[in-house]
Amino acid sequence: MVKAALFSHYIMRTMVKRVFFSTSATKLEGGVSMVQGASRGIGLEFVRQLLHRKETGHVVATCRDPDSATDLQKLKKDFDSRLNILPLDVTNESTIEEAATTIRDTYGYLNLLINASGILSIPNLLQPETTLSKVEKSSLLLTYEVNAIGPILVVKHMWPFLKVGGGTGTEREVAVVANLSARVGSIRDNGLGGWHSYRASKTALNQLMKTISVEFARKKDPISCILLHPGTVDTDLSKPFQRNVPPGKLFTREFSVQKLLNIIDNTKKIDNGKFFAWDSTEIPW
Amino acid sequence: MVKAALFSHYIMRTMVKRVFFSTSATKLEGGVSMVQGASRGIGLEFVRQLLHRKETGHVVATCRDPDSATDLQKLKKDFDSRLNILPLDVTNESTIEEAATTIRDTYGYLNLLINASGILSIPNLLQPETTLSKVEKSSLLLTYEVNAIGPILVVKHMWPFLKVGGGTGTEREVAVVANLSARVGSIRDNGLGGWHSYRASKTALNQLMKTISVEFARKKDPISCILLHPGTVDTDLSKPFQRNVPPGKLFTREFSVQKLLNIIDNTKKIDNGKFFAWDSTEIPW
Ligand SMILES: NC(=O)c1ccc[n+]([C@@H]2O[C@H](COP(=O)([O-])OP(=O)(O)OC[C@H]3O[C@@H](n4cnc5c(N)ncnc54)[C@H](OP(=O)(O)O)[C@@H]3O)[C@@H](O)[C@H]2O)c1
Ligand SMILES: NC(=O)c1ccc[n+]([C@@H]2O[C@H](COP(=O)([O-])OP(=O)(O)OC[C@H]3O[C@@H](n4cnc5c(N)ncnc54)[C@H](OP(=O)(O)O)[C@@H]3O)[C@@H](O)[C@H]2O)c1
Repeated sequence: MVKAALFSHYIMRTMVKRVFFSTSATKLEGGVSMVQGASRGIGLEFVRQLLHRKETGHVVATCRDPDSATDLQKLKKDFDSRLNILPLDVTNESTIEEAATTIRDTYGYLNLLINASGILSIPNLLQPETTLSKVEKSSLLLTYEVNAIGPILVVKHMWPFLKVGGGTGTEREVAVVANLSARVGSIRDNGLGGWHSYRASKTALNQLMKTISVEFARKKDPISCILLHPGTVDTDLSKPFQRNVPPGKLFTREFSVQKLLNIIDNTKKIDNGKFFAWDSTEIPW
Repeated sequence: MVKAALFSHYIMRTMVKRVFFSTSATKLEGGVSMVQGASRGIGLEFVRQLLHRKETGHVVATCRDPDSATDLQKLKKDFDSRLNILPLDVTNESTIEEAATTIRDTYGYLNLLINASGILSIPNLLQPETTLSKVEKSSLLLTYEVNAIGPILVVKHMWPFLKVGGGTGTEREVAVVANLSARVGSIRDNGLGGWHSYRASKTALNQLMKTISVEFARKKDPISCILLHPGTVDTDLSKPFQRNVPPGKLFTREFSVQKLLNIIDNTKKIDNGKFFAWDSTEIPW
């Protein structure tokens, strides 16, 4: 009797789940993608391409200050029903929690989360170090907070929604968490030195994401968590350092994001915990 | 005329340098070693072995609170003229600067710097994470500040003294900066997950030390900066987690430090920037 009741309860839950997902799936054809750090640069370009390349798919674009994100607001005019702009500052966890609540209530799930935010230099506040003598605690802490702690807190709060996996029309077996890391975060590849705060923050980001990829695998969550190096890309972040870039090696945002979306589209379960460059080659830790 | 004056000035400087070093070298036979984080555990055992294994050699042992470091104070009774206990808290940079001033005025140089301080758990304050859901910003920040930022600030302020190289009676061509890292800081080796804050802090420490090793090499400083995994060692740090250690795999402090001193004694220029386990094997990043 008890067993039968439990069984019918199980059937009910499974049915509710199916109905829920099939309804949402029809409603949200093409999946729901979140781009965190979408006001400018690579993050903004991800939003643009996710909206333009197909006629379906919803995008949640988050940034610190939606009102001043003029390029995002322009996209909103063209893609009103598919683009949702939410405020999120990775150094303020309550803004992450609020975004999570909105995503839960609006869509119920996420098939893709791109962490694109990041800092390297900030005028009068943060300069990449050229020598050990210039290493300062304040720079190490700030860069770690934004580049390493920020992204993992975002994944922490979005994790429940990602357990849905790839999503209809995405052609992926898994949901993807894609984190913008950097080749200079590779310890093995570090032949130049310098940029202590930035390097260490990206190396730590790699370790944090590897750590959670192990948990995703153990729990059999249909999520692959990957790290991406976009190449040297023409954005505000790279501007002060572009004179050292050999000709032909400075990518447009369009080119880099095309390459990175290609990696994301083809991400399989087996890629969980890997670190890829824009050209799909693996980068050593 | 100007050229001759410059030349004799150069000769003078070289002579002063030689006289200074040969006097100090005679005075400080066996070299000057600094052990940072020496109140307990592995750091304390380094101090003990450095003092006991030879009849010469000076040791600067630093800790947060010398008055309560009873084991260090006991050693001071037996090795009064060779042991110098100084206060140093890696989270307070001015204490590092004060220790540097004392070392400059007392010895003028250092042939070995061991960064042994580190935190994994602190009752009621810091617990190693078992899942992403338990990851907290405060734990990530505190662990990074102590385990990654602390050691690099210590090297920053001691760097000038280390340029002297190996030192008389040490049989080393180079001064050594040896940092206590941990195998769980290896990204490649991370098959278990968990311990997000501690892992990321040690991975970042590895990257920071690799970064400065590149600068040491470029400037031709006779310094090798290495990272060490001590094994799982019976100390306060490992106590709460020892029940998971297979029998025979929990090392005594004596054994681990013997092995690590063996690595340090044999460190060459070519080892600069490497990560060694207690048994001298290299650990992948
Ligand atoms: N460009 C390159 O050559 C290159 C190379 C390797 C890796 N990367 C990585 O790629 C990612 C994107 O870089 P990018 O070149 O596009 O840089 P960018 O043009 O400077 O854009 C950085 C983005 O991060 C956001 N951001 C900064 N602090 C934030 C915070 N506390 N909370 C939320 N968002 C924050 C910015 O928002 P605001 O507008 O509010 O400041 C902006 O949208 C970064 O992680 C970077 O490290 C870039
Ligand atoms: N034991 C192991 O199995 C193991 C394995 C891998 C790596 N390690 C690493 O080996 C190193 C030594 O560990 P242990 O096992 O000897 O640990 P321990 O017995 O807990 O000793 C830790 C030492 O770090 C000092 N410390 C903590 N915070 C400090 C601060 N803010 N400033 C200066 N000193 C501070 C402590 O001083 P107080 O007395 O003032 O607290 C103590 O002397 C650590 O870096 C640890 O991560 C240990």
